[in-house]
Amino acid sequence: MSEALVATQVLAGKVAAVARAVSIVENGRTGFEELLSALHPHLGKARRIGITGPPGAGKSTLTERLTQAYRAAGMRVAVVAVDPTSPFTGGALLGDRIRMESVALDPGVFIRSMATRGSLGGLAISTREVCDVLDAAGFDRILVETVGVGQSELDVTRMADSSVLALVPESGDGIQALKSGVMEAADLFVINKSDRPGAPRLQREVELALDLRMGASHRNVPAHHGALRSGKSTPPPVDDASWRPPVLLTVASQNEGVAELVAALDAHWEWLSASGELETRRRDRLAQRTREVVDRATRRWVWQESHAEEAITARLDTIGAGDLSPYELATEIVASLREGVRV
Amino acid sequence: MSEALVATQVLAGKVAAVARAVSIVENGRTGFEELLSALHPHLGKARRIGITGPPGAGKSTLTERLTQAYRAAGMRVAVVAVDPTSPFTGGALLGDRIRMESVALDPGVFIRSMATRGSLGGLAISTREVCDVLDAAGFDRILVETVGVGQSELDVTRMADSSVLALVPESGDGIQALKSGVMEAADLFVINKSDRPGAPRLQREVELALDLRMGASHRNVPAHHGALRSGKSTPPPVDDASWRPPVLLTVASQNEGVAELVAALDAHWEWLSASGELETRRRDRLAQRTREVVDRATRRWVWQESHAEEAITARLDTIGAGDLSPYELATEIVASLREGVRV
Repeated sequence: MSEALVATQVLAGKVAAVARAVSIVENGRTGFEELLSALHPHLGKARRIGITGPPGAGKSTLTERLTQAYRAAGMRVAVVAVDPTSPFTGGALLGDRIRMESVALDPGVFIRSMATRGSLGGLAISTREVCDVLDAAGFDRILVETVGVGQSELDVTRMADSSVLALVPESGDGIQALKSGVMEAADLFVINKSDRPGAPRLQREVELALDLRMGASHRNVPAHHGALRSGKSTPPPVDDASWRPPVLLTVASQNEGVAELVAALDAHWEWLSASGELETRRRDRLAQRTREVVDRATRRWVWQESHAEEAITARLDTIGAGDLSPYELATEIVASLREGVRV
Repeated sequence: MSEALVATQVLAGKVAAVARAVSIVENGRTGFEELLSALHPHLGKARRIGITGPPGAGKSTLTERLTQAYRAAGMRVAVVAVDPTSPFTGGALLGDRIRMESVALDPGVFIRSMATRGSLGGLAISTREVCDVLDAAGFDRILVETVGVGQSELDVTRMADSSVLALVPESGDGIQALKSGVMEAADLFVINKSDRPGAPRLQREVELALDLRMGASHRNVPAHHGALRSGKSTPPPVDDASWRPPVLLTVASQNEGVAELVAALDAHWEWLSASGELETRRRDRLAQRTREVVDRATRRWVWQESHAEEAITARLDTIGAGDLSPYELATEIVASLREGVRV
């Protein structure tokens, strides 16, 4: 099947073609860039939602509950679970997948786990490209869940329209965590497992940290906890100029607070659209994507089509003897690349 | 101070110059590659030891105990703590540093923590370059401890002469973990906190997994636990053809098993030297370093000195309108780079 045919069938939403296209893209198989290129004009309909947070925050359960909620509203939902976790804790992912059972057999739901393959950088870009396939295939919501820790969270927020940061009461010290880029990139905070002690305290801490960051003028009425208990939805305030991330309380395992999270995500989407931020984000994403593709293509050229690797092999003894440094050789190699020495 | 002068002072082992050179290299400041180039002929004296493992394995305590042991033998020791951890668990590092107190003020010990800065890839290469500075400065042992999880462990093993994988009885399931590249890259296994239940079982599991991997002919007499209890050192068997990683039991907080670990590291070094593996590893490392430097220099050229970024900015509207894909533009940009279009 040619890339063009796969693309046509993806655009028609054919499940088998979607699965196939995702595999082609995930594994960087021949023609994957042509396929993505063919899908490019058809992107932008899906809302991409990133769900991130520390291990044990219940991200998979949250993702499952969101999936159920969107399905109940008649939408098609894709879930991409990114797992750059340590091999030491590799068991966790399997557990998560098992917990997604309630939606795994629903034909309106597409679930894909992506494991670390080579570098995190490579994983981040191929995750974004897999999301493109799912967007082109007509899924209304694409939920990207990162099971990992660290850099991966930042990478997810960079690809999402809305980033949800899930915490648990035991996460503690919201203010300290806020120093990191991850919390700054969050559009919504969820304190999951909020029936455990410490949830209101963590909520206050996060709100306080947001006060410090945003200035007190954007202070929310801290009513989310009460709203959860009374079952009412309190959408966060919308302001064209800036978005104050709401701090929601959920007990995903009991489906508590999930409707409020859906409402908050809708409110964020409205703000994104009204403020022009959606367009800005998507433009930034396109620029970033182009840079990544240039980097990848450049590496392919340098290592598979130029003489760089040969030059290293030929000079390795000299480097080992200390008569040439890796830096000097690299300078030579890059100079010859720049001069357009043909291969 | 010029790079040449800094290099001269580093080679003379001047502490202030070492700290300065480490900062220059860590932050990629002007002249850092010239500095590393000047140090390159003087590398190779230090033994580089990586200490990795899951959070809570007591890596910092092990590192501290090893440092004390090497100091007692009159050696100079450098410790590089790499922390690509999640911002969510960012508190851990501080705790670790406090536990290193017993050696922090010793002038024969140099300690540096390195935090994630940009991508993990960038952290990995700058960690290796910092180790070069410390090697050139005449430290006898360089201990690189990764606090993180995931890819970082693999990166550390790639830079070390000897890789220690620290586990704890609760790590459980050695066989499952062995599937990962991390365990395969380990030269020595340490089951720390081995006074807790489950240590002998984990030791048996890891030994069994090593049997499966290496063939039963390399089976060790599983005497390390007994040796620990009786205070005797049992160096692992040395075989010119292959190295069977020993599985040692330690209680680093009580300094139990540390002498045995030092002996096992010496035995590994002897095997590395006698088998030719040391030379192979160091050659591979030099080739890998050169590739990384080429990649870094290529990116610098593409993004800071070519027209690539301009081209993206100029065409972003067209991409956003769906009339051009990021892949098509990237292909154009790389083609112009390859043709040696001058800037």
